[in-house]
Amino acid sequence: MARNLLQAGHEVTVFNRDREKAKPLAASGARVADSPADAGRDAEVVMTMVANDGALEEVALGKHGFASELKPGGIHVSHSTISTALARKLTAEHGQRKQGYLSVPVFGRPEAAESKNLVVVAAGPIEHLERCRPLFDAIGKATFVMGADPVQANIAKLCGNFMIIGMIESIGEAYATIRKAGIDPELFLETVNSLFMSPFMGSYGKLIAREEFLPARFVLELGLKDVRLLLDAADELASPMPLASLVHDNLLSALAQGQGELDWSSMTQVLARNAGLKTKSS
Amino acid sequence: MARNLLQAGHEVTVFNRDREKAKPLAASGARVADSPADAGRDAEVVMTMVANDGALEEVALGKHGFASELKPGGIHVSHSTISTALARKLTAEHGQRKQGYLSVPVFGRPEAAESKNLVVVAAGPIEHLERCRPLFDAIGKATFVMGADPVQANIAKLCGNFMIIGMIESIGEAYATIRKAGIDPELFLETVNSLFMSPFMGSYGKLIAREEFLPARFVLELGLKDVRLLLDAADELASPMPLASLVHDNLLSALAQGQGELDWSSMTQVLARNAGLKTKSS
Amino acid sequence: MARNLLQAGHEVTVFNRDREKAKPLAASGARVADSPADAGRDAEVVMTMVANDGALEEVALGKHGFASELKPGGIHVSHSTISTALARKLTAEHGQRKQGYLSVPVFGRPEAAESKNLVVVAAGPIEHLERCRPLFDAIGKATFVMGADPVQANIAKLCGNFMIIGMIESIGEAYATIRKAGIDPELFLETVNSLFMSPFMGSYGKLIAREEFLPARFVLELGLKDVRLLLDAADELASPMPLASLVHDNLLSALAQGQGELDWSSMTQVLARNAGLKTKSS
Amino acid sequence: MARNLLQAGHEVTVFNRDREKAKPLAASGARVADSPADAGRDAEVVMTMVANDGALEEVALGKHGFASELKPGGIHVSHSTISTALARKLTAEHGQRKQGYLSVPVFGRPEAAESKNLVVVAAGPIEHLERCRPLFDAIGKATFVMGADPVQANIAKLCGNFMIIGMIESIGEAYATIRKAGIDPELFLETVNSLFMSPFMGSYGKLIAREEFLPARFVLELGLKDVRLLLDAADELASPMPLASLVHDNLLSALAQGQGELDWSSMTQVLARNAGLKTKSS
Repeated sequence: MARNLLQAGHEVTVFNRDREKAKPLAASGARVADSPADAGRDAEVVMTMVANDGALEEVALGKHGFASELKPGGIHVSHSTISTALARKLTAEHGQRKQGYLSVPVFGRPEAAESKNLVVVAAGPIEHLERCRPLFDAIGKATFVMGADPVQANIAKLCGNFMIIGMIESIGEAYATIRKAGIDPELFLETVNSLFMSPFMGSYGKLIAREEFLPARFVLELGLKDVRLLLDAADELASPMPLASLVHDNLLSALAQGQGELDWSSMTQVLARNAGLKTKSS
Repeated sequence: MARNLLQAGHEVTVFNRDREKAKPLAASGARVADSPADAGRDAEVVMTMVANDGALEEVALGKHGFASELKPGGIHVSHSTISTALARKLTAEHGQRKQGYLSVPVFGRPEAAESKNLVVVAAGPIEHLERCRPLFDAIGKATFVMGADPVQANIAKLCGNFMIIGMIESIGEAYATIRKAGIDPELFLETVNSLFMSPFMGSYGKLIAREEFLPARFVLELGLKDVRLLLDAADELASPMPLASLVHDNLLSALAQGQGELDWSSMTQVLARNAGLKTKSS
Repeated sequence: MARNLLQAGHEVTVFNRDREKAKPLAASGARVADSPADAGRDAEVVMTMVANDGALEEVALGKHGFASELKPGGIHVSHSTISTALARKLTAEHGQRKQGYLSVPVFGRPEAAESKNLVVVAAGPIEHLERCRPLFDAIGKATFVMGADPVQANIAKLCGNFMIIGMIESIGEAYATIRKAGIDPELFLETVNSLFMSPFMGSYGKLIAREEFLPARFVLELGLKDVRLLLDAADELASPMPLASLVHDNLLSALAQGQGELDWSSMTQVLARNAGLKTKSS
Repeated sequence: MARNLLQAGHEVTVFNRDREKAKPLAASGARVADSPADAGRDAEVVMTMVANDGALEEVALGKHGFASELKPGGIHVSHSTISTALARKLTAEHGQRKQGYLSVPVFGRPEAAESKNLVVVAAGPIEHLERCRPLFDAIGKATFVMGADPVQANIAKLCGNFMIIGMIESIGEAYATIRKAGIDPELFLETVNSLFMSPFMGSYGKLIAREEFLPARFVLELGLKDVRLLLDAADELASPMPLASLVHDNLLSALAQGQGELDWSSMTQVLARNAGLKTKSS
């Protein structure tokens, strides 16, 4: 993402806890900061991409966080998949400092980030979104604006992830039955996908059929975290999501059975074992 | 389907309970039979497409059914979505008469049937499948062979339908949450589908967002019947399918609330109401 | 039950496929019949207690069934847990012969039958119920009349069984969490049951805590059959039962993992394994 | 509870945000404190009973909290149903001050508290438990010790509540089906409870049959909070609880439909409406 920003002609300062990781970007013209605070100084926009709520709170509001250094009118663009609670807190904290806050999670794996093929999901005050649009254009293939409240982008991202794990649950259940009926799962997948015609379903379905869960496209433990965040957000909205509850329980079962580091689609092994099927790992 | 068979140069006899419906085909060169038995006399292959188990048992094995007339070596190609129990019974009954039986359900709506775009799912003894392949080629865009046991095609079809209703459940839950968060469902759909890139999901998702459940693409009552058949088949295979159970309960709830004649994607209104949302019909 | 009928002074004819099993009753004064038909001849009331739908259809309506011999005005009292479909069929078949039909399932284990402690659940035309009341009084501690339609007793019995397996699911989930928290399940049970004060919950809870699933109080395979019958009945009534669906899936999973002959409360082992816990059998 | 402590001869200081509520106790010999801190000064043991995590954190660790005043060796006995996270935090905070912390939630309604019939569930270091036992004996009919880690009592209490709402779900589903079959729910309840013989089930079942949800025995909103706490605790332990997820979704649906202030057993109305039944409130 940083490389694509540089390529689009933006002036970029980078910070990574592991300074080594920042080096290649320095070679491409980025300034390397010593701390989040250092990165925020003199910036127009600070874009953050970290693992979870705790990490984001630290880099934004912690001792060496950038919020205290960012000038009034500066904008924090948060790309991480975080809780709605934190999005609200950041909106308030930045607001008190006359700074802007946008939630801008993205869909897409590292390859998509490299090839500028991310799907950008944004929400926040319209004037801030407009100012940042050139940045979104520089990193993704399309930007979708969910609304004026940053939290809306977080919820849309969590619901998008839910659509994926929902598809995985469907595939997993169908495969268990299909396998017990003596049918080849990949053949079934090809059949069904001649209806859906979704390359995304095709590639996931193939990995599940072959039980290829390493290297993980999306680590199960993180996927479970996202489903938790969704259930929390849905709870707050008083919106029951029984399928989300179901996949939560199945991901939890996978975790309890030692699959935390595998791809989250390995949740399908829980379904297979519950049908009395052997799995590669069991 | 009959028209496409005629167009491919096959000799076709048709039977419909409503003789009027058969007339246009007569104009295209089909012979119109007086009864299923009449249709089966002298036939090489009898293709059936009826509403449910009861109807199929009637036309095949009933008083005026064709099984008693079909010559040894003749093949019954059953296109209906039926129970595995009936598929097994037909296999046995035709076998006793030295006739063949193939389960050959199809995916696709009437438009797909007209435009020769059906997806054909077939199973049964290989030699019978080979003899019938020109017929499958005449009605569909692709044929997928699930195995040598006719029941396998029935199960694959039921699992395919399950993948669809599973997607509908996912969409319905996501929309409920999305709507309560003040986000436009169609905008969310467009965002997510830039990931899935499934035209099928796109068109269903749009109808659900707009609550357009009439005319029904697939009548809820029939959809519920198929989920029942799937749960029966999965039970027989000792394969638990919790998502299938969930959609069964939700479809049942939709039925109890008077939605039996709407499209089965109107099941999403149950989810909306359970989230306290107003729906068009409520 | 037969012994208690004899003790109450009723004239009893018995039939069992295994004639040996009928012998001790002969010693107590019962006549031993050669066939169901023989047992039905000259009877006022025929009481049946068999394993499933198939067996009941056989003894009532089969070649040597008693329906053809029972005189007009005779009553068939069916104690088995059967489908609502069969109850309806028997109502119709006996009605055509001017015979009566009552569904009278019972709650209670063999010990309860011996000690006259069964709970009798009855439904059917009031005049027939009144005529049979002395029989119910002879076999149980209490009789509950559900209504004038025999099917109502079948549904009540199935819903009663559902209350039991629902309790087992609750115990199983609580135990999994309790055990992972390092708490003794029996201690937890004692605590909770000081609230419920249910001896029934106490005895089941103890067996589950100790994983004592043999000898089976109620064989899992039969329990699963009953849940299936309930789901069918509820489907027919358009009444979604998500917890019944859940236990169906869990019982199915237990079956797939070889627990069909254990007590149905061994379903809790599925829950334990899904939480990553070791079970005695795994 | 305070009255029973006084009656048992203990010296009692009380604090309530609403000073009026403390007055009757003053008449019985209790000292009325001006703040939690005031109440904690010179105390051997501080017993807290508040609505939720926030309130407990405030009275213990807030500006006027008692933790800063309680002497080393003093013990905080927490009776509230709180999160495991807060129990852990309090264990640590009190530990740093050389104070003890015990989680001691209770089962029972206000009447049970008055009549000394509470069920006391306790966990924490054995020496602290022993010192406090006379207090537990003064307020309840029985004390159950879950283990040496305070969190164990919180989890046992949450699992106990889960057993109750699990029973409510069972009753609600059975009643929906029973009612659609034309059977009187109270008659069904009486039948089934002649098996369970649980007065607790009897009284709840009666209220549900009559749809008497006011005055609330346990307010739905608080019940939902407890299920949330349970799901969080179970998640932390990697113990999937599908029935807990199901009741969470149903309680949430009840909340979304305006039932937050009713008894939590009004969740059964969601089930009734999903079966197409009319409810008193709808």
